[in-house]
Amino acid sequence: MTDRVVLAYSGGLDTSVAIGWIAEATGSEVVAMACDVGQGGEDLDVVRQRALDCGAVEAYVADARDEFAADYCMPALKTNALYMDRYPNVSAISRPVIVKHLVKAARQFGATTVAHGCTGKGNDQVRFEVGITSLAPDMKCIAPVRDLALTRDKAIDYAERNNLPIVTTKENPFSIDQNVWGRAVETGFLEDIWNEPTKDVYDYTDDPTFPPVADEVTITFQRGVPVKLDGQEVTPLQAIEEMNRRAGRQGIGRIDIVEDRLVGIKSREVYEAPGAMALIAAHQELENVTVEREQARFKRTVEQRWTELVYDGQWFSPLKKSLDTFIDDTQKYVSGEIRMVLHGGRATVTGRRSESSLYDFNLATYDTGDAFDQTSARGFIDIYGLSSKLAAARDEKFGNGPQL
Amino acid sequence: MTDRVVLAYSGGLDTSVAIGWIAEATGSEVVAMACDVGQGGEDLDVVRQRALDCGAVEAYVADARDEFAADYCMPALKTNALYMDRYPNVSAISRPVIVKHLVKAARQFGATTVAHGCTGKGNDQVRFEVGITSLAPDMKCIAPVRDLALTRDKAIDYAERNNLPIVTTKENPFSIDQNVWGRAVETGFLEDIWNEPTKDVYDYTDDPTFPPVADEVTITFQRGVPVKLDGQEVTPLQAIEEMNRRAGRQGIGRIDIVEDRLVGIKSREVYEAPGAMALIAAHQELENVTVEREQARFKRTVEQRWTELVYDGQWFSPLKKSLDTFIDDTQKYVSGEIRMVLHGGRATVTGRRSESSLYDFNLATYDTGDAFDQTSARGFIDIYGLSSKLAAARDEKFGNGPQL
Amino acid sequence: MTDRVVLAYSGGLDTSVAIGWIAEATGSEVVAMACDVGQGGEDLDVVRQRALDCGAVEAYVADARDEFAADYCMPALKTNALYMDRYPNVSAISRPVIVKHLVKAARQFGATTVAHGCTGKGNDQVRFEVGITSLAPDMKCIAPVRDLALTRDKAIDYAERNNLPIVTTKENPFSIDQNVWGRAVETGFLEDIWNEPTKDVYDYTDDPTFPPVADEVTITFQRGVPVKLDGQEVTPLQAIEEMNRRAGRQGIGRIDIVEDRLVGIKSREVYEAPGAMALIAAHQELENVTVEREQARFKRTVEQRWTELVYDGQWFSPLKKSLDTFIDDTQKYVSGEIRMVLHGGRATVTGRRSESSLYDFNLATYDTGDAFDQTSARGFIDIYGLSSKLAAARDEKFGNGPQL
Amino acid sequence: MTDRVVLAYSGGLDTSVAIGWIAEATGSEVVAMACDVGQGGEDLDVVRQRALDCGAVEAYVADARDEFAADYCMPALKTNALYMDRYPNVSAISRPVIVKHLVKAARQFGATTVAHGCTGKGNDQVRFEVGITSLAPDMKCIAPVRDLALTRDKAIDYAERNNLPIVTTKENPFSIDQNVWGRAVETGFLEDIWNEPTKDVYDYTDDPTFPPVADEVTITFQRGVPVKLDGQEVTPLQAIEEMNRRAGRQGIGRIDIVEDRLVGIKSREVYEAPGAMALIAAHQELENVTVEREQARFKRTVEQRWTELVYDGQWFSPLKKSLDTFIDDTQKYVSGEIRMVLHGGRATVTGRRSESSLYDFNLATYDTGDAFDQTSARGFIDIYGLSSKLAAARDEKFGNGPQL
Repeated sequence: MTDRVVLAYSGGLDTSVAIGWIAEATGSEVVAMACDVGQGGEDLDVVRQRALDCGAVEAYVADARDEFAADYCMPALKTNALYMDRYPNVSAISRPVIVKHLVKAARQFGATTVAHGCTGKGNDQVRFEVGITSLAPDMKCIAPVRDLALTRDKAIDYAERNNLPIVTTKENPFSIDQNVWGRAVETGFLEDIWNEPTKDVYDYTDDPTFPPVADEVTITFQRGVPVKLDGQEVTPLQAIEEMNRRAGRQGIGRIDIVEDRLVGIKSREVYEAPGAMALIAAHQELENVTVEREQARFKRTVEQRWTELVYDGQWFSPLKKSLDTFIDDTQKYVSGEIRMVLHGGRATVTGRRSESSLYDFNLATYDTGDAFDQTSARGFIDIYGLSSKLAAARDEKFGNGPQL
Repeated sequence: MTDRVVLAYSGGLDTSVAIGWIAEATGSEVVAMACDVGQGGEDLDVVRQRALDCGAVEAYVADARDEFAADYCMPALKTNALYMDRYPNVSAISRPVIVKHLVKAARQFGATTVAHGCTGKGNDQVRFEVGITSLAPDMKCIAPVRDLALTRDKAIDYAERNNLPIVTTKENPFSIDQNVWGRAVETGFLEDIWNEPTKDVYDYTDDPTFPPVADEVTITFQRGVPVKLDGQEVTPLQAIEEMNRRAGRQGIGRIDIVEDRLVGIKSREVYEAPGAMALIAAHQELENVTVEREQARFKRTVEQRWTELVYDGQWFSPLKKSLDTFIDDTQKYVSGEIRMVLHGGRATVTGRRSESSLYDFNLATYDTGDAFDQTSARGFIDIYGLSSKLAAARDEKFGNGPQL
Repeated sequence: MTDRVVLAYSGGLDTSVAIGWIAEATGSEVVAMACDVGQGGEDLDVVRQRALDCGAVEAYVADARDEFAADYCMPALKTNALYMDRYPNVSAISRPVIVKHLVKAARQFGATTVAHGCTGKGNDQVRFEVGITSLAPDMKCIAPVRDLALTRDKAIDYAERNNLPIVTTKENPFSIDQNVWGRAVETGFLEDIWNEPTKDVYDYTDDPTFPPVADEVTITFQRGVPVKLDGQEVTPLQAIEEMNRRAGRQGIGRIDIVEDRLVGIKSREVYEAPGAMALIAAHQELENVTVEREQARFKRTVEQRWTELVYDGQWFSPLKKSLDTFIDDTQKYVSGEIRMVLHGGRATVTGRRSESSLYDFNLATYDTGDAFDQTSARGFIDIYGLSSKLAAARDEKFGNGPQL
Repeated sequence: MTDRVVLAYSGGLDTSVAIGWIAEATGSEVVAMACDVGQGGEDLDVVRQRALDCGAVEAYVADARDEFAADYCMPALKTNALYMDRYPNVSAISRPVIVKHLVKAARQFGATTVAHGCTGKGNDQVRFEVGITSLAPDMKCIAPVRDLALTRDKAIDYAERNNLPIVTTKENPFSIDQNVWGRAVETGFLEDIWNEPTKDVYDYTDDPTFPPVADEVTITFQRGVPVKLDGQEVTPLQAIEEMNRRAGRQGIGRIDIVEDRLVGIKSREVYEAPGAMALIAAHQELENVTVEREQARFKRTVEQRWTELVYDGQWFSPLKKSLDTFIDDTQKYVSGEIRMVLHGGRATVTGRRSESSLYDFNLATYDTGDAFDQTSARGFIDIYGLSSKLAAARDEKFGNGPQL
């Protein structure tokens, strides 16, 4: 039986050309797998047909939208995952679900090898290959664009020689990746980091400079996950889609940063993640109300590690799983409602309400009814400050006291 | 000689009344010290005279504005200090400088005791007292509002009986603290955390809903500190003041959170910090361009600890000093220019430029001229993913492999 | 009905006297509760009778030995809990189980208040009271020795006046706490930190200077917990007891440190924990064999936080629970055998064997059969070292290159 | 002019053969550089001559002993650097100093390339190459044993064919690396991790089973660095050498672990580091006495990162430098004396004395003269336990209260 390779297929030039290249280079049959993670754009049935027209022996569309939202975006939300405090790991969390469907397809179609279309200097190659090796340590993995040095010029040339049904117009100025959690744009004139993004960079968001009237939304969370918008029950996928729509219209969630890639270089990235950014802001504030202080403080350490680990392609690693158990435990009481105003690029929390709140009006208030025993304060401060006091006395003894 | 107490004097009702109370309760002479940290409001000479009129034997205004900006705000900026990822430690960094001047005044006026006007359930009492004990372990500290249970009603009554020159109108709805780094508002109807702040809560910022035209600013940093705005040299104080003005006009830097106090309760706080928030955003992005990845990742851990430590009143602690040395070392190359657009509540970085940038166009570009050797990638991934791969193989051996 | 107070009763002078004192000071009936955590020493039935003779209306012995071993010592073992890298939290983990039985007894005997015999400058008062408040936020807690300033002289005087059945000889030179996880000794001449402990300080361990012949033991772990010793099935309690006996005979587990207390002072402590220290050494090495690198690295951060949190009296806190879920997840594969030689104060691992090992002979060996692909190394190093290389090039550009 | 390569030369078979191989493979002249880091063994003048006899155009011995002790071992001591809590980074800290001398020799002898003799599956290749790239980003680096696949059989064959002046007996059972900080042994029958090390594995230490009489030593530290032994002034090098001798005689510092390599595999390693382990134990206890609690707690986080970073070959990285500034700041008061008994494999601290101690007898004592104000405790506990108490009350509200 002929060997088979399952290719992660996007429908674009590179992976279309890769079908033939892989077949030629390896003598294997190529199965194309397109994964729907809510990226929108072309109809995936059209994409599927194109794969067949380019020489795939099988072509397959995996609808991973609900799974992606529930099992990949929601953990990122519970973690408030923002790489470098900014980037909601948009591409970083979609790679693992695509990898899972690649491996699944490989098992189903009897393939021993999977292939992806990433280049050799980005993070995604690592996310794909470490993901594959972590789900299927026996599986081989090839990367034709990188390993066969498939440049754009060569790809166009190949497509034209082989009459592949692809429009090979002059290069798109940007390299783009998108899914329901957000959209990533890089390269082109953005590579000059002094350049401001132009309007054509954006697609998920309208210009926040001229917003429509303010939009108020109430989000109900259950254990860290949005379950209602304005009282209407929603699935995780619906919550993200609806918030993308409403926050996107207000220009919320545009991000423009210079970012540290796993491969050791800095790159300039523009992202749009209207739903993700609004949901994270709401979730963080609900945590402020419902998570105990020390748990919240240590959770930040866990959040950072989780986010870097996932950014770095280790979604399926043992550490990631252990961090997830920690995070899930912290979400036990992250239930309640956040009222939020979406307007002109800002997602502003204006109210919070929770049965499981740790905010206690009677302790917090300065009005009559204050339940806080202020006489405890002096004893607290005396002991709390003692080790610093002893250190200060030593400073003085050694002439290192304060310069007043 | 009569004992003397130096009181941190704000000019308000509580500390005005405290002058007489302390004198009566302790038999000491009271020296009033007002500290100018850029809080604006009343003329401090008027405040000084009021202290004398209320019975202080000496009254003193310390102009700490430049010192506060340079030695307290700039370290917070280098640290990107945002408690709970939101609050730029506005009050938390002003307490130490006030404490320093309290102790200095105590030495100068021959006092053995200092006093502050904080209540017994906030963070500031801790910041004052731990600060004092860390600068002057021998000094006594009293807190009349807390320890003598000085309620507002009692204070008004006392003021009227003693004809103190204070306007004792009905209670201001809010408790407010302000300085050049920002403004904090709490209590009143904000204690119901479902309530949205009303317009009268704000003073440093205009409403971002109806902003003036966008304002572009270029900030030049030298080792993490702003030294020019739009090419004009500025001191740290000038940088903050000017950015307060320009970002404030655009409604930038409004913060509304439920916050974990050191004393164990959650409280609702509204802040305005237009200059601080814009400067931090600019500084963070310049760090993204100039700080090496692993240094930047660990710096986040240090930032969190620094910020919590300072929030918790340990400005003068040994750990804080050691963290400062770490942070200063990371700022060696944080020099360059950030171009930023201020508009409608958003401070958006649109360009960065630095002689000491680690962003390397030739490594980052996907264009001709790419200097990145993509053939290294496969070897990198093989080794980078190896420990996860071995763990995955074990999962499979034990029947814990992935559910596909 | 008369109010009741449940007192944590040790049988010693202080808590014996406290029975009468509490009754007099509060008018309540006192119920004495002695908790068996494997401390050995006096028969607890004798202790129980003494409580009654001292005026308790009820006296109760809770046999918490198996529970303590399984639910308190085993989590500490999985965490390799060593405060300041030395102290296995001996007293720190026994307080919570005693607190649990105190609260349980209070519910059972209809008490609204519990009492402990700790002084006001140690950690244990915090562990008791924060534990109680975390299990029963409604329960009152009193501390007669601290709050009634019950000094030893007063206690002796009281005992003699009331003919309490206690031997009130001259003061024991040390303050001692012991349980199956170890033994803590403090005060007396140990307070001079230049003094070496004398032989009479020790009880759980023989002098390691003149040990019996070496003792080899093989410990079988299942998910981080010892389940067999030399092939014989053991409960957690039996594992600790047997290891105490065998490691104790070899003088293993003596610890002598200056320690940072939660209340801000440093104190000198001597501990003996022969079983705990040997088991932790074995467990750590089995983790080295079975836990993936990044999981192991982050686990150290979690271990430190867990250990400090438990030392600081927060056993029942939300953060502690979340950290436990992380730790339990890491123990999934910590199964296998450790061979260890116990001799002369040393517990030396000499062999490890595990079905779930991540050590792979074929990858590790330098012999024929090496499965490691060394050609990956160059690519790995190129990319792994890239960000440091770019930083080094910048150093050179700015004249900050290395001094050779 | 002919290109030159500077080779890190050990005098052994592999690097002796490499001289000729490099010359043949590259057409360059080979300069041999042997670096004295206190490894003992052969006279380095003999080694130098051998390099010339094997074809080196120049041969050079760098005496780096004092520099290694002062600038590499002392920072490791201040950090208490123990990788995986066990391994004092023996080889990991010697690579950077060798790298420095390699680069220095390359500059001096006009070479553009340096070479090392490491294989492709260890940590040392990474430490060499990342070190070189960080000191001299322009320098090329070659690794003949790895890149030319120089197996032992090929090396012996080459040596015999070319009459190289090397004894090519049958393979030594172990791979060994040593310097003044310690000695590392791996491979051979140690690769079976159930095997106990045999006596011939050890060289720096005598068998601790039959020790000579106990040896008491007093170590005086100044800012974290040993400056006197038993009152005699010593340099860092002398301190380590003398402690190696005295602790080595007592069998102190034997380590046997399964270790996580940077390249993703676990390997079995045996180390001997008598001086290092004894000095670290003394240093840690002096820190316990002199470093403030919160500084000490955070220092553990820094220690772990420093140790992993250096283990992972990033000695010259920006993060390492910033961590050093933190650590140096913590050592300001780590001055004083530690008395220690060395005996039978144990280095036991028995006394500590310091002018800059934070241990305060008057606060710690339970005797008359106690200066600790116990009345502060209740207020402290009330506030310290408040956030856990509120969380516990919520648990009860939701039926998640404790199971008693």
